[in-house]
Amino acid sequence: MDNFTFYAPTYFAFGKDTENDTGKYVKQFGGSKVLIHFGGGSVIRSGLLDRVKKSLDEENIAYVDLGGVQPNPRSGLVYKGIDLCRSEKVDFILAVGGGSAIDSAKAIAAGVPYNGDFWDYYQGRSVKEALPIGTVLTIAAAGSEGSYNSVITHENGMLKRSTTGEVLRPKFSVLNPALTQTLPPYQTACGITDILAHLYERYLTNTKQVEVTDRLIEGLMLALVHEAPKVMANPNDYDARANIMWTGMLAHNNSCGVGRSQDWASHDIEHELSALYDCAHGAGLAVSMPAVFTYNMKHDVTRFAQAAHRVWGCHMDFADPENTALEGIQALRRFLKSIGMPLTFAELGAKEEDIPKLAKMACHGDVRTGTVGGFVKLNEQDVANIYRLML
Amino acid sequence: MDNFTFYAPTYFAFGKDTENDTGKYVKQFGGSKVLIHFGGGSVIRSGLLDRVKKSLDEENIAYVDLGGVQPNPRSGLVYKGIDLCRSEKVDFILAVGGGSAIDSAKAIAAGVPYNGDFWDYYQGRSVKEALPIGTVLTIAAAGSEGSYNSVITHENGMLKRSTTGEVLRPKFSVLNPALTQTLPPYQTACGITDILAHLYERYLTNTKQVEVTDRLIEGLMLALVHEAPKVMANPNDYDARANIMWTGMLAHNNSCGVGRSQDWASHDIEHELSALYDCAHGAGLAVSMPAVFTYNMKHDVTRFAQAAHRVWGCHMDFADPENTALEGIQALRRFLKSIGMPLTFAELGAKEEDIPKLAKMACHGDVRTGTVGGFVKLNEQDVANIYRLML
Repeated sequence: MDNFTFYAPTYFAFGKDTENDTGKYVKQFGGSKVLIHFGGGSVIRSGLLDRVKKSLDEENIAYVDLGGVQPNPRSGLVYKGIDLCRSEKVDFILAVGGGSAIDSAKAIAAGVPYNGDFWDYYQGRSVKEALPIGTVLTIAAAGSEGSYNSVITHENGMLKRSTTGEVLRPKFSVLNPALTQTLPPYQTACGITDILAHLYERYLTNTKQVEVTDRLIEGLMLALVHEAPKVMANPNDYDARANIMWTGMLAHNNSCGVGRSQDWASHDIEHELSALYDCAHGAGLAVSMPAVFTYNMKHDVTRFAQAAHRVWGCHMDFADPENTALEGIQALRRFLKSIGMPLTFAELGAKEEDIPKLAKMACHGDVRTGTVGGFVKLNEQDVANIYRLML
Repeated sequence: MDNFTFYAPTYFAFGKDTENDTGKYVKQFGGSKVLIHFGGGSVIRSGLLDRVKKSLDEENIAYVDLGGVQPNPRSGLVYKGIDLCRSEKVDFILAVGGGSAIDSAKAIAAGVPYNGDFWDYYQGRSVKEALPIGTVLTIAAAGSEGSYNSVITHENGMLKRSTTGEVLRPKFSVLNPALTQTLPPYQTACGITDILAHLYERYLTNTKQVEVTDRLIEGLMLALVHEAPKVMANPNDYDARANIMWTGMLAHNNSCGVGRSQDWASHDIEHELSALYDCAHGAGLAVSMPAVFTYNMKHDVTRFAQAAHRVWGCHMDFADPENTALEGIQALRRFLKSIGMPLTFAELGAKEEDIPKLAKMACHGDVRTGTVGGFVKLNEQDVANIYRLML
């Protein structure tokens, strides 16, 4: 196991009606003037935004609104949010929504106290200072409610890039699984796929002797695969929603990824797809993961066979473990299809003729260093081959 | 799943040589005058105490020493520590050792700013204020390095009681698995047993539909059972030590126990044994767990069968799940015996004639309310029956 540090000081309030205490948590973590940051109309229509505002009113906390975050959140709104926070003297950012609202909130939080362009942080500069952030989560997916990561797409060239910084961990996150019950099935499935991808990215490691984190990741995968069909069959299954929501947080707060190298090839290869075609991140991952795994399988057949056996229940073929490894990838495909995810380029609206451009951007776009992936270092040719496996 | 809050803001520095940065962490978390609290001579003989002091010197942090913590830490030294901290104007408590040193440090930390008797906290009063605490862990066992719990034995009547309080979570914990390589095999095994017990106490729940925490607990158990024989065979197996050390923290920081009722009967029944006979806590748990589980099995055969199948690899007897459940308890016994743990009253030095007294203390000793256990409410007669199963 590699040396590591782990620090995840987010306060989680989990369960029914917890959003009604949002104001209390903002106060507890020092907020007096809040930017409420959210996406489209669903948080308004559902009455969630009103309930959150009421809880702020009850604590005499002032606030301003900034809605309009879109999936694959954009730089334009971040700049607008930074300006608004400065002019309104905001001291706390509250995201109400999913990973997009939270990632956009993190970008604003980092940008406000910074003299330069916030985009510097998405070009390799690490974030050392940011306004405090809180979240009220409405979709189990990105794990941004407990992570130190943020992904933003710059409208100048549609570059989708990420940043990290311990100061980006939310001070608190309110997780009410009931809020996810009204999600369209496609979004629910995209969220489940994103969670599964966060687990696979950590599972695919070159670090040896990491049984505890292996078992944690497998346990979270098993729970997810067990609960997913329940919410697809019955969107109002609160307990299944709850299990998935807590899995989503644990999949990405890195408690199961410490002390081991990680991959992230599926994410980097997907990011070019959602940047170019504006498809849902989860849908892109459903297409990229099986392709990446098939391409990389021979790098460590045992690891893929272990996942196949322990997570997907495939019989171990001791004579030829490669069969088991392949069966596991097939099982993953079947699972993704069963929850309504796409499996091919065409289903995403992606085009074969774009492959050279996609592969070039993935490997040589700004801040990229010629390869993607920590498990296998994939060059431009490898990545093009992988995109072709998605056809 | 039940509503819950989860807040675990401990900074973990994990890996080789991390103790050399202790001073840096004390400074980071605001300490300027430190009480170094430790047990016997091993931390002196190994040079660990010197390395920790050197790291404090490097940051110009002043300190005073208080050694002498014994297993099942006592109230007497806590009173002494409180007096010393007050007279020396200590503002940070640093425990160097295992669960005993850390629990004693937590008691001192709570006692210093409190006007009354610190023992009030172990009689049902919750801790709201405490000096900040840091730890340098030398044994994977109690999980106190990441928990908000502390257990102290009062010398007046040898009452062993616990307290909780979010302020008791260490600000930082330094976890170097190499420091555990010099432990005697018996202490290593006691630690492994304590970790396993922390997992079982959370596993035995009456809350339904908690797949994610079930799978996490099972995953940690699987990792522990896989790694334990390695360290028993080769005490210098760093990676196995590392896996066990991180498992020990996760088993008790409650990330896998949230949103579900828990048991703690095995602990409460054991505490009377270690209070009366001063046996090792882990050894007492090795004797109490199988007895408690056998007695409670019929309350939820499926749960015990699930553990037997998923953790211990027992074949599921679909015609008679009770067979599987019993097999799982037998597998637990075999595991405990394989790492050198006692399984009977006699091996602990406990006496049959003390059973009525033990059962009475467990159920009616001060702060007890007539029963123990959250999974099955066990009265004095039940507890006496359970002690008899240990004969």
